This record gives sequence, structure tokens and C-alpha cells, in this order.
Amino acid sequence: MARESKGSLMTVREDVRVLDATLRDGGLVNNFHFDDDFVKALYAMNVASGVDYMEFGYRASRDNFDADKYGKWKFSDDDDIRAIVGDNPTNLKIAVMADVGRSDYKKDIRPKSESPVDMIRVATYVNTLPAAIEMIEDAKKKGYETTVNIMAASKVGREDLNHGLEILAKSSVDVIYLVDSFGAFYPEQIYRLMDDYLNIGEKYGKIIGIHAHNNQQLAFANTIEALRIGASFLDGTVCGMGRGAGNCFLESLISFLKNPKYNIVPLMKFIEKYMLELKNKEKWGFDIPYLLTGVLNSHPSAAIKFSREERKDYSRFYQEILDDIG
Amino acid sequence: MARESKGSLMTVREDVRVLDATLRDGGLVNNFHFDDDFVKALYAMNVASGVDYMEFGYRASRDNFDADKYGKWKFSDDDDIRAIVGDNPTNLKIAVMADVGRSDYKKDIRPKSESPVDMIRVATYVNTLPAAIEMIEDAKKKGYETTVNIMAASKVGREDLNHGLEILAKSSVDVIYLVDSFGAFYPEQIYRLMDDYLNIGEKYGKIIGIHAHNNQQLAFANTIEALRIGASFLDGTVCGMGRGAGNCFLESLISFLKNPKYNIVPLMKFIEKYMLELKNKEKWGFDIPYLLTGVLNSHPSAAIKFSREERKDYSRFYQEILDDIG
Repeated sequence: MARESKGSLMTVREDVRVLDATLRDGGLVNNFHFDDDFVKALYAMNVASGVDYMEFGYRASRDNFDADKYGKWKFSDDDDIRAIVGDNPTNLKIAVMADVGRSDYKKDIRPKSESPVDMIRVATYVNTLPAAIEMIEDAKKKGYETTVNIMAASKVGREDLNHGLEILAKSSVDVIYLVDSFGAFYPEQIYRLMDDYLNIGEKYGKIIGIHAHNNQQLAFANTIEALRIGASFLDGTVCGMGRGAGNCFLESLISFLKNPKYNIVPLMKFIEKYMLELKNKEKWGFDIPYLLTGVLNSHPSAAIKFSREERKDYSRFYQEILDDIG
Repeated sequence: MARESKGSLMTVREDVRVLDATLRDGGLVNNFHFDDDFVKALYAMNVASGVDYMEFGYRASRDNFDADKYGKWKFSDDDDIRAIVGDNPTNLKIAVMADVGRSDYKKDIRPKSESPVDMIRVATYVNTLPAAIEMIEDAKKKGYETTVNIMAASKVGREDLNHGLEILAKSSVDVIYLVDSFGAFYPEQIYRLMDDYLNIGEKYGKIIGIHAHNNQQLAFANTIEALRIGASFLDGTVCGMGRGAGNCFLESLISFLKNPKYNIVPLMKFIEKYMLELKNKEKWGFDIPYLLTGVLNSHPSAAIKFSREERKDYSRFYQEILDDIG
């Protein structure tokens, strides 16, 4: 049975939430070295553009990561967030991401009443779901909204994925995300996977989200395909800033959605003033090596290395990835 | 009634034909100034990659266009094509495009038996369909395969478009193309429009094609959506080279299609050797101004001018397009 479109291109979907992941996924490009001026302007832009959530970065463990090597948004301390948003007297909610195995969440995540953060996003692989659920329940008990982002879904068989989804759906998590970490999925596959996610969501009362990567220039197409059939949480980043090929462009999402609360003009002004400079300094976005790892459903790390070394021998690189996965 | 997928992601679709439009659409970027070495290598690559058709350029009238201002592929004389392909002893077929009102087709298109060209592609707007049909019948009588490319479909109402399709379908044309000249369509719209095209195609025994532009990074997504439900002729260009935001990447198409005759390695080698240099000299591809004209279903010329002037005031540009279409 085909899943019907939820609304049309003209519909204001009240369930939709746009999440700006620029600091977090973009932080993987520049090791989270964003200066405060940039972050304040990004926050103000998100408020003015009608974005629903802004992800500030990771809440990573200082025991596991050398603070000298990273900017502050690798750790996203409550105090650092508060220095940007004050008491955040806006409709924009604040999120941070905590990776399974890389966060001292019991200590580093304080009760919601003491924090400017609204939502904890737990990133996990399918094989660490039990640990993810502990983190979700911890965050929920402390008063936060929660999401779980199942990474590398393109590497998991459908049966295992559905089994994982059932387990997650019995937890307290609010939002379950399909994450196309390798930019490997085509819209047809997003449709089928999303159907599974939405079936679980409907059965257990969970919201479904999508986080796409742009290896094949399909991040936006995959995001709106997921949206069309019922996904509600949509991740984007300004200028698609994110690891490797980057993410769904926030400007595409904002211009696509029909809710009049979304406004592209502040976003355009932010790009003029802040992103052009950053684009000259840092490197991300669609390019041939990312296309090739995406097509071969392979981690982008080899393509990132290829790009850093300024190699251009694409045909040889293609053989190397084939060898790696062979 | 929803239109079913024609095959799956694993299916070899024997009806599919890939057309490389690099010289023609890419020629709009550099006024057709490709040197022979490039064109010969592109031809050899297309043969080796299993591409089905190579479009050499326009067959434009020398009375209407100053030959000193353009490279030879604005005119694509039979002799110039023959200098590249000889007798073309390959499976790759040769196409040229003739615009309604810009081609002395009666004189400049000789009988197929005297020409290396296999296919005449007639580009028209809906309001010049009668002239397009004259050109089609002329080419057909001379022995050529023919396509008709209805440009700017996003500016035509559905009723007018369907009326035009019916008229065309009664001509001798072999292939009818949906052309998203402004990069304005979302996959949902491609689905609906393609359904109309395919209905006409099935009724009159016509093949359907798709030519997409990348203003919203949807050229590939729109092309494979059209393919999924039944389009057979798929246009791409190397590195998406084409006017403004450019086209569907040929490398995406070749890596997506499951017919083992398509081979991405010669294409990667061609990019290494020829396209990187060209990309440093010429400017095309997705960028914010093209996104904005695409979103607003507006001709890309304003965005091309904006880019040439190296303006970066996107928010002001957005207001200017709104004013223009208001």
C-alpha cells in the first residue's frame, strides 16, 4: 500500500519543526571554532527566520576530548550557551547532541530547570541502542525533550532496523530520526524507510525526523520526500555546512515550507555577512569524491582525506573505495 | 490513481537512453568555445561510458548569429561534427538542437544520408508549437530521429500544456521532453507533470524525456523521479555544466543506472583531465541566486547577471526578483 502525501505543496503543516544544525554538523568542518559574534548572529537569524530549534553543538566529555583542540561547541556548556542566548526569551528552542560513549551525561547534563537547553539529541548506532536508551531516560527524567538519531541507517538491514525502532519506540524518546550518514539513499529508499519509521511512530505515538547528507545532491530532495509522507522534524544547516558533502541547505527548507512564519530574508542577510567569509576559509559541500563514497554507501572519511590532500585522481579513488569495501 | 514505479532500483530498464548535453547546454556558459581536443575526448568518453546520445550543440542560423562571437558548436556544421567523429563507428548517436525561429533548418539540415547526425532536437515554447511541428516534420522527412523540448514548462498552465502535448503527439516526433528551464519544479510536481506526459505518450506511442536544471539542487532528484515512473530519455552534462545553476550531473546518472553498459571510470578520467581546468575558467553550478530564481519560478538571467557582477547582496536580490515578477 502506497503511503499518501500528508498535505500538498501549499499546505501549512503544523507538525513541522525545522532544526538548524549548523554549529553541530558544521562544527565537524572547523573543529567547532566559531567565534561568539558568529554564534550570536546565527541565533538571531534563526529567531528571525522562524526556525524552531537551534542545535548548539555536542555535549562531549572533557575527559575524552582535549579541550585545547576544539572550539567550545564541542562541549556546549550551559554557561557558554547562556552567554549567547541569555534566558532565550524567544520561540526558538535550544538543542545539544550527546553521542553514546562520548558524553558524561550523568554529570554534564544538569536538570532542565538549571539549563538553557530544551532538547537533548542522542546519537547512536543500532548496536548501541541500549546505551542510547539509558541516556534518553536520563535526559527525560531531568525534564528535557529528547530525540534519538540512529546513524548510518544505510548500513543496517531492514529487519534489524525495525527491531531497533520497536525497542526505541518503547522508550520515553519524543522524536526518532532517520539519519543518512553516508548520503547513500535515493528518494525511493527514503520513502520505504520512512514508511517503516512512520509506522512505528504511529503505533507508539512518536514523532519522526530526517537528517540527510548531500553526497549525491539529494539531501534536500530526500528531506522533502520524508516530509511529504509524514516526517515532522527536518534538519538543515546554513549553506549546507557539515562534514564532507554537508547537509540539507537551511535556505532550501525555509523557502520550500509554506508556513508564513518562515522567512528567508534574515537567512540571506546572515549568509552575506557571515557565511561567505567562512566558505572562503573552510571546505565542505558536494564534490566528486563525496558522490563516489555516497554511491558506494561508504563512510565519507576517505573522501575527506582525498580532498584535504588535494588529490584529483577520481578514477583511482573510485578503485580504492571499491577495494576498501570489497 | 498513483502511477506505479516502472521497475526497481535494481532493474535494467531497456528503454532508458542517456543523452550528454555538455556541449550544448555547457556551450551557453562559454559561448561554445570548446577546443577540438576537448570535444574529441568528450566523444571518446561518451562512447566508453556507454552514453547513448551526445548532443554537439545548436544548429543555429548564421544569418541570425555572428559567427565571430561564438564557437563552432553554436552552429554544429555536419563537417565540424565529422571532423570529430569520422563516420562514427560506435553505438553513440549524435544529436544537435535547433531552436524554433533561430535555425535555417530547411537549408542547414541536409538529408540524414549526407550527415553524421542521428537526431534533431527541436526546442520550442508552447506558443510556437506549430512552427516546431513544421521543423519536426522536415527533419523526419529527411530521415532523422526527432525530439521536441517544450521549454519553460513551469510557466504554462496544465490545461494549455496538455493541449500542446496532444497536438505534438499527433506529429511524427519520436520523443517529447519535459524541460524544467528555471529549475523551479519539486519532485512532487515532476511526478504530476510526468504523469500527464506519460499518459499522452502511452496514448500516441511517444517516448518521454526529462531535461532538468539544478537551481534548487533537484536536477538529479527530478530526473530519477521522472525515470522512476516511466521517462526514458534522460539528459545530463559532465559536472552539471550548463547555463546558470547547470544541469543534472552525468556522473550521477551513470552511477545510478543499473545497466552494466554504463561505466563511470572513463567519465572520472575525463573530469580529471578536462573538466577541472574548465571549472577554473568558467562559472556555473548551484549557488544562492539561482536558488532564489528557481524558488520564484523566474528566468535565471537575473541570477546570471548578479553572479557576473560578483554581487553578494542576496537579500536585496531576492526583493528585486519579487519586484520583477510582481
